[in-house]
Amino acid sequence: MNDVIAFEDLPAGRIIPLGELVVDRDEMVDFARRFDPQPFHLDEDAGRDSIFGGLSASGWYTASLWMRVYVDAVLSGSTGQGSPGVRELRWLAPVFAGDRLAFEVEVLSARLSKSRPGLGLVEMRGTARRGDEVVYQFESTGMFGTRG
Amino acid sequence: MNDVIAFEDLPAGRIIPLGELVVDRDEMVDFARRFDPQPFHLDEDAGRDSIFGGLSASGWYTASLWMRVYVDAVLSGSTGQGSPGVRELRWLAPVFAGDRLAFEVEVLSARLSKSRPGLGLVEMRGTARRGDEVVYQFESTGMFGTRG
Repeated sequence: MNDVIAFEDLPAGRIIPLGELVVDRDEMVDFARRFDPQPFHLDEDAGRDSIFGGLSASGWYTASLWMRVYVDAVLSGSTGQGSPGVRELRWLAPVFAGDRLAFEVEVLSARLSKSRPGLGLVEMRGTARRGDEVVYQFESTGMFGTRG
Repeated sequence: MNDVIAFEDLPAGRIIPLGELVVDRDEMVDFARRFDPQPFHLDEDAGRDSIFGGLSASGWYTASLWMRVYVDAVLSGSTGQGSPGVRELRWLAPVFAGDRLAFEVEVLSARLSKSRPGLGLVEMRGTARRGDEVVYQFESTGMFGTRG
């Protein structure tokens, strides 16, 4: 048994919980100040007056949090070689400071690359939930080396 | 003439240049250390040995840089009310420290919301180029208030 996660360890249907975290208000606002300084991501009053009903996280912050837990739980101990992109990324509900989010990845399909020997392409769906509510979801392709 | 960018100012076909920037190595690596600590985003040697051929930016960093210039050039002076999501986000080439990137947004289509009076939905394509090469591209829906 090898501890490294390789292409062969990611069959269709496998679901990997990525852990939970509580959204930190200071980091959430710092991220918005640098990368997404829209008023409803920076200021309580502007948030309350917005379509989101409160000071909400930049969607790119939520995406970045997902990525971090995925790296920690999967990629850092894997043959992962990056990703060419993402499809159907959806911010389904606003995320607020103090929210406890639970993260998950599910393998949708997996196949060997035809052009690159030793490389597999894994289609996956990433999710973040607050309780039973999905707040963030996307599909992506991950490239993973085989054990061979 | 109103200086605020509203739904009516974003007809299909409009292309808005979002400016240029040079990728800062320290910030690029800091972002990866926090959100995407894969070796090829942190370390020169690991980058050189990776599929990317060099120390490369996290794709989420590139996405966040695009967002910042879009906020500065469009959203901050607009009736923008966020976005429900992104489709077909593609990291077409690795991004390296020192790269000069040029950013752009193009309106693909625009329509009024049927369910929310005073709100328009704008389909757009965001792009980042290094010279003539597209390194990052995605399509997204933006929600913008009308002038009414």
